[in-house]
Amino acid sequence: MKKNVLIIGAGGVAQVVAHKCAQNCDVLGDIHIASRTVEKCRAIVDSVREKKSLKTEVTLEAHALDAMDVEATKALIEKTRAGIVINVGSAFVNMSVLRACMDTGAAYMDTAIHEDPKKICETPPWYGNYEWKRAQECKERGVTAILGVGFDPGVVNAYARLAKDEYFDKVTAVDIVDINAGSHGKYFATNFDPEINFREFTGVVYSWQNGQWQTNSMFEVGKEYDLPVVGKCKAYMTGHDEVHSLAKHMDGADVRFWMGFGDHYINVFTVLKNLGLLSEQPVKTAEGLEVVPLKVVKAVLPDPSSLAPNYQGKTCIGDFVKGLKDGQEREVFIYNVADHKDAFEEVGSQGISYTAGVPPVAAAMLIASGEWDVKQMVNVEELPPRPFLDILNRIGLPTRIKDADGDRALTFS
Amino acid sequence: MKKNVLIIGAGGVAQVVAHKCAQNCDVLGDIHIASRTVEKCRAIVDSVREKKSLKTEVTLEAHALDAMDVEATKALIEKTRAGIVINVGSAFVNMSVLRACMDTGAAYMDTAIHEDPKKICETPPWYGNYEWKRAQECKERGVTAILGVGFDPGVVNAYARLAKDEYFDKVTAVDIVDINAGSHGKYFATNFDPEINFREFTGVVYSWQNGQWQTNSMFEVGKEYDLPVVGKCKAYMTGHDEVHSLAKHMDGADVRFWMGFGDHYINVFTVLKNLGLLSEQPVKTAEGLEVVPLKVVKAVLPDPSSLAPNYQGKTCIGDFVKGLKDGQEREVFIYNVADHKDAFEEVGSQGISYTAGVPPVAAAMLIASGEWDVKQMVNVEELPPRPFLDILNRIGLPTRIKDADGDRALTFS
Repeated sequence: MKKNVLIIGAGGVAQVVAHKCAQNCDVLGDIHIASRTVEKCRAIVDSVREKKSLKTEVTLEAHALDAMDVEATKALIEKTRAGIVINVGSAFVNMSVLRACMDTGAAYMDTAIHEDPKKICETPPWYGNYEWKRAQECKERGVTAILGVGFDPGVVNAYARLAKDEYFDKVTAVDIVDINAGSHGKYFATNFDPEINFREFTGVVYSWQNGQWQTNSMFEVGKEYDLPVVGKCKAYMTGHDEVHSLAKHMDGADVRFWMGFGDHYINVFTVLKNLGLLSEQPVKTAEGLEVVPLKVVKAVLPDPSSLAPNYQGKTCIGDFVKGLKDGQEREVFIYNVADHKDAFEEVGSQGISYTAGVPPVAAAMLIASGEWDVKQMVNVEELPPRPFLDILNRIGLPTRIKDADGDRALTFS
Repeated sequence: MKKNVLIIGAGGVAQVVAHKCAQNCDVLGDIHIASRTVEKCRAIVDSVREKKSLKTEVTLEAHALDAMDVEATKALIEKTRAGIVINVGSAFVNMSVLRACMDTGAAYMDTAIHEDPKKICETPPWYGNYEWKRAQECKERGVTAILGVGFDPGVVNAYARLAKDEYFDKVTAVDIVDINAGSHGKYFATNFDPEINFREFTGVVYSWQNGQWQTNSMFEVGKEYDLPVVGKCKAYMTGHDEVHSLAKHMDGADVRFWMGFGDHYINVFTVLKNLGLLSEQPVKTAEGLEVVPLKVVKAVLPDPSSLAPNYQGKTCIGDFVKGLKDGQEREVFIYNVADHKDAFEEVGSQGISYTAGVPPVAAAMLIASGEWDVKQMVNVEELPPRPFLDILNRIGLPTRIKDADGDRALTFS
């Protein structure tokens, strides 16, 4: 039974993770929050105390940590006796934090793929470039590493596995749809780190279709979805982490990811991209200063966590799964709807952070209980989905199913 | 009789100035080009030699100079025995270069108002914030300083004066219209230094109407003009240097400036401005680097001088002047049409640089001849316009008149 959680990162998602760990600290034990800027960790600690989120009295502490520094991370894991590390820091630190976990035996979790700040990772499957190269060593050392266990990737991978297990004999297509129908009231803002957000859309769009990787450009393939609660929304085929693992684990089914974008977002994005302002490659100003344009765009945009207090509306994220059951073609939509305002009231973050931050806590609870303490590296679709969805159902992210039989909650015995 | 010209700056306008000085070096004497980056000056020298622009054999030299350094500028003026300084460097160096001219007795010229890099100059009349504070001292020292003698400001000021002298008993309104109907074939680019270009449009739009300053915001007031050669164009009321001097010198007439903008330019500008990327105030990146967003935008945009080889189409810039003549209301449009391709073939720069760079050379010729060597600080509308327009007519920027009597060339006896 692993216990004591070290949260790495201090943004909007870390805030959610901390609150949810606190609400379940009877299962999880002590909570430690570490990031480069210790003040941001302290603010999260204060928020957890203010909202009285701690279920029982455990240690709750803020730490300064450069998570690129493997030895410092190992030392902190040991000092805090953390059995579980939830990495919700920048996507650039994944491999360093994973290394520290492998060396100390702590369980590792993240919510997004590792990225090299200098490149937009181009070769599919993306996990093959970094994470999966450590799979063998994790197995040898008996270290549990659950990759991409936010909402998407994460819960949507569990939805795909649930569909495969319970609704189909053979899955032929998984279309993951992520719609944020909320409004933050700003001219323009990204819902999480702009640097990571834009990097998702500046590269090639990979999808897995007809048994091979297909490439498109961003905003090339659009589709109107009519979804529960949020209604009609325009979504575009986008490159996304989970396409890269599901392509391997869904027995050859097509896997595509669709993200909702308004015309205004697309216009701003297009202007910035065409001007070269989303580039991760440094440029030199007339005065000789070397600077990465994307980092300047990040600096002028609103801090995503500042959006939370005024965020209105809902998100709808889920999987349209097609395939065969008893020789018949069928389609199922497995989804969750989250509300920005509810999220802010409960944990002080908006809905996007909420959907990303609650799932790793559910996963931590399953590691603590032993059910998901698999002592190897896995993507979420390799794990039994029901225990995970069951906890999510109870701690804030209920699953619903819509198919020919209607629209209903997923039930647990 | 002043002689020998020192050109400060090495951009597209400096290139035009150098070529035109060379074509008239029998009147102007030696030509020196100075800028921070001596290589850029050398490239201009090479271009002048390649195109065999030198009318007679004179000294033609490149120099490295930080024009913010008054003592270094004075030393260069003395070393080169320059009687005339044409400042077409950054608008941030005007006051330093003017100081060097006042101390050495050289005649001073520029083509744009002085700017403090840290602020968007807000209080009208703009010349009153810097240049005009030196007017008394120029007079006492007998130093000739001609402010804003490019096309606009510059030639359009002479057009206003010509209208006042020859076409009206009383001028009631001057509407200056600047349309670039050319195309550079890039996604987006500015025609001169992006930093200066954008700074023109991020502040308050000042116009002089009904005997007082009126304020509007950029793109608030638009108007469709139907102009000779370039046809129908949408123009917007814009803040511009010459409004600030003409408001003082046109006996209370309304003075407005209108610049043509396509929808695409406006969209890109609006996105950049609303995001804060056109700000001249530094921001700090997540890594702690202090950087001025506008300087990064400048760094990613095409170098304006790189546009020249593929620039197609024409510019039309002129003054719609309204007023009374013999008790009757009348309107005159005094204008010039320039061609981007012709400009490139003649001097290796596009049309916008051409229209800005030819006029200061005409003014230099009038200082050399004594006609404009007025031994005080003036704006162009304070000088007799005909000698200036006569030279421009001969060296590449002919003036045309359109009114109830038709569309014709301005004639000189």
